[in-house]
Amino acid sequence: MEVSGREMESQNNRGEFRPDLIIKGGTVLTMVQGQSPLHDAKVLISDGKITDILDADDHWYDRPEAGTEIIDAKDAIIMPGIINCHTHLAMTLFRGFADDLPLREWLFEKIFPLEAKVLNPETVYWGSLLGCLELIASGVTCFADGYFFEEATLKAVQKAGLRSLLSQGVIDFAAPGVDDPRKNLIHARNFIERYSGLSKLIRPGIFCHSALTCSGSTLQGAWEISLEFDVPLQIHLSETKEEVDEIMAKSGQRPVFYLDELGILDQNLIAAHSIYLDKNEINCLKQRDVKIVHVPESNMKLGCGIARISEMIRIGLQPGLGTDGCSSNNNLDMFQEMDSAAKLSKVAELDPVGLTAKNVLEMATIWGAGILGLQDQIGSIEKGKQADIIVIDLNSPHLCPMYDPASILVYSANGSDVKDVIVNGKILMKDRRFMTLDSAQIMEKARELGGKIIRA
Amino acid sequence: MEVSGREMESQNNRGEFRPDLIIKGGTVLTMVQGQSPLHDAKVLISDGKITDILDADDHWYDRPEAGTEIIDAKDAIIMPGIINCHTHLAMTLFRGFADDLPLREWLFEKIFPLEAKVLNPETVYWGSLLGCLELIASGVTCFADGYFFEEATLKAVQKAGLRSLLSQGVIDFAAPGVDDPRKNLIHARNFIERYSGLSKLIRPGIFCHSALTCSGSTLQGAWEISLEFDVPLQIHLSETKEEVDEIMAKSGQRPVFYLDELGILDQNLIAAHSIYLDKNEINCLKQRDVKIVHVPESNMKLGCGIARISEMIRIGLQPGLGTDGCSSNNNLDMFQEMDSAAKLSKVAELDPVGLTAKNVLEMATIWGAGILGLQDQIGSIEKGKQADIIVIDLNSPHLCPMYDPASILVYSANGSDVKDVIVNGKILMKDRRFMTLDSAQIMEKARELGGKIIRA
Repeated sequence: MEVSGREMESQNNRGEFRPDLIIKGGTVLTMVQGQSPLHDAKVLISDGKITDILDADDHWYDRPEAGTEIIDAKDAIIMPGIINCHTHLAMTLFRGFADDLPLREWLFEKIFPLEAKVLNPETVYWGSLLGCLELIASGVTCFADGYFFEEATLKAVQKAGLRSLLSQGVIDFAAPGVDDPRKNLIHARNFIERYSGLSKLIRPGIFCHSALTCSGSTLQGAWEISLEFDVPLQIHLSETKEEVDEIMAKSGQRPVFYLDELGILDQNLIAAHSIYLDKNEINCLKQRDVKIVHVPESNMKLGCGIARISEMIRIGLQPGLGTDGCSSNNNLDMFQEMDSAAKLSKVAELDPVGLTAKNVLEMATIWGAGILGLQDQIGSIEKGKQADIIVIDLNSPHLCPMYDPASILVYSANGSDVKDVIVNGKILMKDRRFMTLDSAQIMEKARELGGKIIRA
Repeated sequence: MEVSGREMESQNNRGEFRPDLIIKGGTVLTMVQGQSPLHDAKVLISDGKITDILDADDHWYDRPEAGTEIIDAKDAIIMPGIINCHTHLAMTLFRGFADDLPLREWLFEKIFPLEAKVLNPETVYWGSLLGCLELIASGVTCFADGYFFEEATLKAVQKAGLRSLLSQGVIDFAAPGVDDPRKNLIHARNFIERYSGLSKLIRPGIFCHSALTCSGSTLQGAWEISLEFDVPLQIHLSETKEEVDEIMAKSGQRPVFYLDELGILDQNLIAAHSIYLDKNEINCLKQRDVKIVHVPESNMKLGCGIARISEMIRIGLQPGLGTDGCSSNNNLDMFQEMDSAAKLSKVAELDPVGLTAKNVLEMATIWGAGILGLQDQIGSIEKGKQADIIVIDLNSPHLCPMYDPASILVYSANGSDVKDVIVNGKILMKDRRFMTLDSAQIMEKARELGGKIIRA
């Protein structure tokens, strides 16, 4: 299309930013409350930030200057990068190692012994790299992780270029990498101290496994560390009926009130699963501004139960969405997770209206940003926000025709439909080619380690 | 690898079949009861049939003759083609047209009026072609369809080269294409008479919408036609609580016993959904050898309920698996459907052991073949069976590493991981290129028709 003299002039005079990256030609789903999808639009990016969103009639930058990188989004959806609010990335190496087992047998006879045997900085590093590959390949630009040897995960994530909250795991057993359980808290504090403020993209945090596997004083110690450094404290909350029963037997209170009495419920607490909560507990979590993460596929696969997410949303909570680790899902595909979240809620309540496509898209983007305290930086496509953006290719039979972008993304797409991934203005995947990671090398190494794991 | 003189001799003298197609180098999951996966194996195909399965040590045909087609399955799984036992293919054109609505509003205010307005042989033909593209792209080689203008679907499926049961829809309203409801049965009978025995791959059938929308005499008339031509009769059974209540109000009996009294329960009846069944009804269906199809994602999305599939399997039933049409799922991806089936059963029963990866793979292959009366022809990779085979590429981060093929296929893969699709020895997709259909033309036409539908 010809650009008129007036438009060229406008181009030259307009604003202070010269874009270094332009995503053009697609349907932009901004995820800003109340905004309709923009068709045939352009997103301009400069120095890691979104500087403009132009609609079809705005021909500014139809002819970009030499050196401006272009991503073609014709027949595609442009949307904020997906945020996975709960995973254990290194466990990607254990994908499918143990399935279809009773929960206790799975955890105590398979996963914990396996971790004790094979976890070390090397396996965590390569497992995390494999996880990063999968996250990027399926459109995740930011995630919250909690595991052991978190420094090895940090190195992998830095290489990948993803945005993340990385939390060192704390448990009252001899954790992998820490011989004496009493040192777990110190170990986590050292990790946070070392990496606080060191990276624009990576924030350190602390992760207590659960209120069953951590004592009250461990939980309080972790909370003090989270307060000291103003970083999130992640925890698994009321994931199983047995967990609730045991905590009630030991404390005489339902888990949320037990944690409240310990004084650790605040805006820095991220509570994953949150299945077995009664009305009073949900209200208490809301009052204390605790962040809730829904993990539907893992909850289904382990036969744990169904969180009352649409009820939480109705009273004003804005939960995030997570996949959990690959030993209980068994992938990191947030598009499938959105689909499962919506469908599971509908069948659990026998109400097809309860949790909508729009709700679960919010959970996976702007609400997820809020869970991680990043709602001013990411989660939507808006001028001034960080450029964490993905492009979804619609040129597949299963995405055709498109009546409504939200519906296509949630109910029809899968992670493999993601074409381009941008974090902080940097392209991590272009036309499904990885730009920061060597996928062949990582998968070869993962297969080699997998062979050792099966013989361990 | 060098082939020795003795092996060459063996090659020349062995058997009567010269393969015209060889799939080589992959892990073969035969789906034959008790057989372990074969690694680095070869499947030989001649004249539409499987003539041999060779393990890694068998070097027969390492050097195929000129003209033999080769499919490379290195780093891939070779398995029987997936069987989708319940769909309404032409509705692929309505994917995402109406979501997140109460069931009655969805059906009576959106879908039925839409069908009355836009259904004609042209929309059904192109909707079916779009559906065929999606089925092939996601590894389905055989499916059961029930809809209106079924002759138009038949033309599309013939062009695609898929195996199928295609059933003309019967309902006691003025159905699309038939002005007078009394003519629906005659119309269906004519369709079956015309296409019985005409095609090796396509079998005609009859599809009664439900025991609510078809009277007792219509159901008996349909059953007589199914008896006359020995073809399946498909029906939606006890999909919603309301349906059960209304049938009980009108007949005084639970739906299965109402149908039994009509005399239509036999081995030709295929009952999709089958959610609200009590123990006696399940036993009755088993006694009468009625075929049951589980449709979990549609049941979730429409908020209908959860079928007691693992209980049915425990008493010896072998259900099939189906996606339903794209207006209630919203895709035809049977890999996601297997995942959902297993996970939904586990969470519904709070038992992670109930429905296993192996179970749902059987539902989607050998049991599905049994539902359609084709268990001697398809559903497993065995010498003498029809060559309906697919190859799944494992070269993706989300399928790495692989400890167990069944786990990877059910819990980690999606339809887009399918690389090659073979039906009756003919390649329908090779390296994700469609061999029988023009995908660009079909998607363009679907988008054009979608534009008209949204304005209708």
